[in-house]
Amino acid sequence: MNNSYELYKSFIQKIADIKYASAVLQWDQETYLPLKGNDTRGRQIATLSELAHQQFTDEKLGALLEELSQQNDLGDSEKRNVQLSLEDYRKSKKLDSAFVRKMSEVVNKSFHAWIQARKENDFRVFEKPLHEVIELKKQEADMLGYETHPYNALMNDYDKGLTVTITDKLFEDLRPGLMILLDDIANKEPIDNSFLHQHFDKDLQWKFGMEMLQNMHFDFEAGRQDISEHPFTTNFSSRDVRVTTRIDEHDFGNMTWSCLHEGGHALYEQGLPEDQYGLPLGEYCSLSIHESQSRLWENCIGRGLPFWKTYYPLLQSYFPKQLSHISLEQFYKGINQVKPSLIRTEADELTYHFHVMIRYEIEKQLIAGELNTKDIPAYWNEMYKKYLGVTVPDDKQGCLQDVHWSHGSFGYFATYSIGSLYAAQLFASISEKIPAVSHQIGLSESSQVLTWLQQHIYPFGRYYDSEALCKNATGETLNSRYFIEYATRKFSDIYKS
Amino acid sequence: MNNSYELYKSFIQKIADIKYASAVLQWDQETYLPLKGNDTRGRQIATLSELAHQQFTDEKLGALLEELSQQNDLGDSEKRNVQLSLEDYRKSKKLDSAFVRKMSEVVNKSFHAWIQARKENDFRVFEKPLHEVIELKKQEADMLGYETHPYNALMNDYDKGLTVTITDKLFEDLRPGLMILLDDIANKEPIDNSFLHQHFDKDLQWKFGMEMLQNMHFDFEAGRQDISEHPFTTNFSSRDVRVTTRIDEHDFGNMTWSCLHEGGHALYEQGLPEDQYGLPLGEYCSLSIHESQSRLWENCIGRGLPFWKTYYPLLQSYFPKQLSHISLEQFYKGINQVKPSLIRTEADELTYHFHVMIRYEIEKQLIAGELNTKDIPAYWNEMYKKYLGVTVPDDKQGCLQDVHWSHGSFGYFATYSIGSLYAAQLFASISEKIPAVSHQIGLSESSQVLTWLQQHIYPFGRYYDSEALCKNATGETLNSRYFIEYATRKFSDIYKS
Repeated sequence: MNNSYELYKSFIQKIADIKYASAVLQWDQETYLPLKGNDTRGRQIATLSELAHQQFTDEKLGALLEELSQQNDLGDSEKRNVQLSLEDYRKSKKLDSAFVRKMSEVVNKSFHAWIQARKENDFRVFEKPLHEVIELKKQEADMLGYETHPYNALMNDYDKGLTVTITDKLFEDLRPGLMILLDDIANKEPIDNSFLHQHFDKDLQWKFGMEMLQNMHFDFEAGRQDISEHPFTTNFSSRDVRVTTRIDEHDFGNMTWSCLHEGGHALYEQGLPEDQYGLPLGEYCSLSIHESQSRLWENCIGRGLPFWKTYYPLLQSYFPKQLSHISLEQFYKGINQVKPSLIRTEADELTYHFHVMIRYEIEKQLIAGELNTKDIPAYWNEMYKKYLGVTVPDDKQGCLQDVHWSHGSFGYFATYSIGSLYAAQLFASISEKIPAVSHQIGLSESSQVLTWLQQHIYPFGRYYDSEALCKNATGETLNSRYFIEYATRKFSDIYKS
Repeated sequence: MNNSYELYKSFIQKIADIKYASAVLQWDQETYLPLKGNDTRGRQIATLSELAHQQFTDEKLGALLEELSQQNDLGDSEKRNVQLSLEDYRKSKKLDSAFVRKMSEVVNKSFHAWIQARKENDFRVFEKPLHEVIELKKQEADMLGYETHPYNALMNDYDKGLTVTITDKLFEDLRPGLMILLDDIANKEPIDNSFLHQHFDKDLQWKFGMEMLQNMHFDFEAGRQDISEHPFTTNFSSRDVRVTTRIDEHDFGNMTWSCLHEGGHALYEQGLPEDQYGLPLGEYCSLSIHESQSRLWENCIGRGLPFWKTYYPLLQSYFPKQLSHISLEQFYKGINQVKPSLIRTEADELTYHFHVMIRYEIEKQLIAGELNTKDIPAYWNEMYKKYLGVTVPDDKQGCLQDVHWSHGSFGYFATYSIGSLYAAQLFASISEKIPAVSHQIGLSESSQVLTWLQQHIYPFGRYYDSEALCKNATGETLNSRYFIEYATRKFSDIYKS
């Protein structure tokens, strides 16, 4: 046993304890916190974050990591942990604590301004604090350092190695294929999905959702589901992974696909190696890969015909009044209706990418200083008109819809689309290896998919970056062709008439 | 504004953030944690405890407190906060971190041994680890220092100023009065309470409990109730106070009086001064006073006829099948049945004190080295025979029933009885000031009781010790006469036939 390595491990795992504790406090804030507890909860989380940051930037840790990185007697995993922690450490040291505190204050202010701006449906309320956030993010990019484009420095936070060049290329490849599909669909008979908006009892929806999670092999002894305003997944170790959902009695889809989406995230977290608790190899690869896991279950599987061949009869038994007169085919078409719309989180699988591309474009220009904060609404509305053909009636349904900017999360959005592209590519590999998933997805097929993911994705943690992980799993790096093929096959069939 | 005081406040409040975060993790562990999350949760809590202890014993804090304690420009509350924090600091410094770590390891081991011993129903499984705990507690008493009796050092942790001399005197005063009452009752017709053990639906019990909490003015915007294995109250600020209950479908009493008991604790926590967050004046006075608050609502109010004049009709409307043929008088007698028994937590208001006195006697002798660990079961059984006239059939229903010793909580038990004595004395004062509570306790009377407590108990935090607080509130220091008078009046009436 290497003493320095044990010391490093203990150091890093204690920091993980603090971060996970903070995550418990946040989970509680979103699920069970009584109203008046909000203020003190805010300060408790801030104190833990500060502590974690202090400890992670401790020179003692730095020295230990430098020493370990020179050692030759470490195993492969140990070496990789040290290497990744050293990268993380050096990165943290680039941001001094005054900057971190400043960012946290500004972000706190901008989040409240965003809430207020949404209430007043007026971007101008949010403009100034957002501008401050953007200026700090520009500084952050400079402090972190980058090649070719400052936005790269920020994207790196969410997906190591992801750049503007790569993303632009992916989107350029994706756009024409999508356009062709959307043009084609626009000329077809619209699909009716009004049956999704009947009244669906809350408790029954909850039970159906729990049954789906169970059937996709979410481990309820190592996790749970609760209700929150916005669905999310969090974890406090790979043995305690929590998902949340929300239930709308007049929109059956809300709960169903959030369950599958968060369930996909959760299976990934439950599959991360338990013995790497708190260490880089116990953490997820990147946000893009995380999103690929959620989109795989939500879309490739959960909006597919093979899945509903199994689950539609079950669903009908939950809601006979609402669904017994709707055929499987009608249902399948209904849940895959394509229709350009204003709100990203409600978009279909195809138009979704344009929502993301628009945000990506805006962020890139903001960080490069090519777009001014005050010009966001006009530019936003112009892009929505251009790419989706919709007229944005107000800021709330426009540039105020997403929380990310108010949190200072710049560089994040592209991973939503990229995650979908990875999902399609993984799903192509899975379908090749497990032909049964093309016909019917029940318990046994779910478990085969899970086994494949447990072999090709989950056990590696951060050992590989997204690109290498994808190449190992599918035989080639990310290629948007797989999504276009998947989408063309699926939607040409749905809109064949 | 005094700079040093602000510095002290920020220091102490950050430690409070860590402690409250740890409390959130523990609350979650008791309520929602999935099974497999237990191990990592254990280490997360341990890390936070270690951090809080490290920061609280930081020499910088000591120097700051010494400096502040010499200053003359502090207000009254500020002076008191500094004084109490300095006391706490000096006390913490007496226990070095090696000792604290050793204690935490030994306690962890002994807790698991206790669980195992209960499973096997054999004290011998618990004996060795318990012995280690006791040896450490003796050391702790020596390190902390004491006058006359080592047990005083441990009692001080739960109620500052409480001593063996005071407690012995209270119990000596209490015992004869209780004996007379119990002898008297033993000669009367036994009371039938079998109706409490019919089937009572879980959801309906829950609703009834929530209604009681609401009516006692528990603020659900600053707290919540959940289900756990053992009912408890915890808080993460005075604006976030959580109670739990458990529901037994075949024992209606379990949920009802745990709701009122924990509700009493919770009202106290919700009533502590919000602007003293994390500071001594924002903390409860002592465990004895805390227990007085729970026992006041559970027993003096919640097992009283005036309370059930209001709530029995409501309860009957929840459970017409089970209770419509039981009169208010029968119900009132049933819930006050006196019967010597084996289990402390199920004991009636009178015999309860003997359970506590037995543990107190055993602990005192263990810490003084007058009783050996291995002799606990025999001594326990002898005492139960002597004071309660019951034969202990096995360790599980005997000396293995309470968790406290396995946690290293020595010096705690007496506060259970003393809390009841305080409750009776406070209730006498309340009844004098608010005569209505002797007749009927509905919403308005509950709110008058609460107002009285908000004036006489809640706002002081740790400003006064138990004795002074009681004297200010009732005009005299603790006197067990009030309990004897209360009990004699109540039980002579119940057992009058």
